[in-house]
Amino acid sequence: MNRKIIPDIVEATNILTMGPDDSAEQAAKLMAGKNIAAMIVVDGDGNISGIVTERDLCQKVMAKGVDAAATPVSAIMTANPDTLAPDDSAGDALELMQTRKYRHLPVVADGKCLAVVSVRDLYSAVKEALEEDIRETEAFVFGDRYGA
Amino acid sequence: MNRKIIPDIVEATNILTMGPDDSAEQAAKLMAGKNIAAMIVVDGDGNISGIVTERDLCQKVMAKGVDAAATPVSAIMTANPDTLAPDDSAGDALELMQTRKYRHLPVVADGKCLAVVSVRDLYSAVKEALEEDIRETEAFVFGDRYGA
Repeated sequence: MNRKIIPDIVEATNILTMGPDDSAEQAAKLMAGKNIAAMIVVDGDGNISGIVTERDLCQKVMAKGVDAAATPVSAIMTANPDTLAPDDSAGDALELMQTRKYRHLPVVADGKCLAVVSVRDLYSAVKEALEEDIRETEAFVFGDRYGA
Repeated sequence: MNRKIIPDIVEATNILTMGPDDSAEQAAKLMAGKNIAAMIVVDGDGNISGIVTERDLCQKVMAKGVDAAATPVSAIMTANPDTLAPDDSAGDALELMQTRKYRHLPVVADGKCLAVVSVRDLYSAVKEALEEDIRETEAFVFGDRYGA
């Protein structure tokens, strides 16, 4: 699994971000609008300062019975999260996610978050790579490569 | 992928359930306590009537700014959800989840929910099955089966 996080697994995109003083309710609204499970929190310079997920909203706000509109995301986010570099391999990223039980990881270069990778993105890539291995092995066994 | 949902992918367990009149806040508390992302809602006879997820809590309660303690899960759950049978195959289950964009599916027999399968459980199983295929194909190619 030598595929690179960018561009083999995800594209660098203009991802939606929020500030640390924005509320948990605002995070829920933004995530719902894009049907995503995690948001990147950035400082005044646009550098990544944290990540907040649906799980944070459920476990640290709703389950505690606190007011989502009055809770800043800085209070519930994972600050200074582990990140990936664009040219990290998909295999290494998956191992990091499985070891630390992450479901999402920011892809960061020069402090700026370029994309967010989900464990589902990575599993799909691993599955495709394994299927490719099988096809290649079978092609070798059964000799169905024409003109090779 | 002829593995059966039960017992190859998940075990039948005494899963935690809640009633339709219990609140969204209570769902968040129960899910947080078990660090799970979905809860099964049952009727008075203990038969499954719906499934409620962290995503429902975020999108249908917090993002709307409504009171989680005053919102019954019956108002936000997926009622009469698609389900799996214990002897369904892992491959068919994964296809259903990918097609319909589900992340969790209840495994039901005689109206009772025996387990909840996540897309992650299934991806892991698919990955293992593919790896096994590769090992078997390689063993055939390179003849490292002793005494066979």
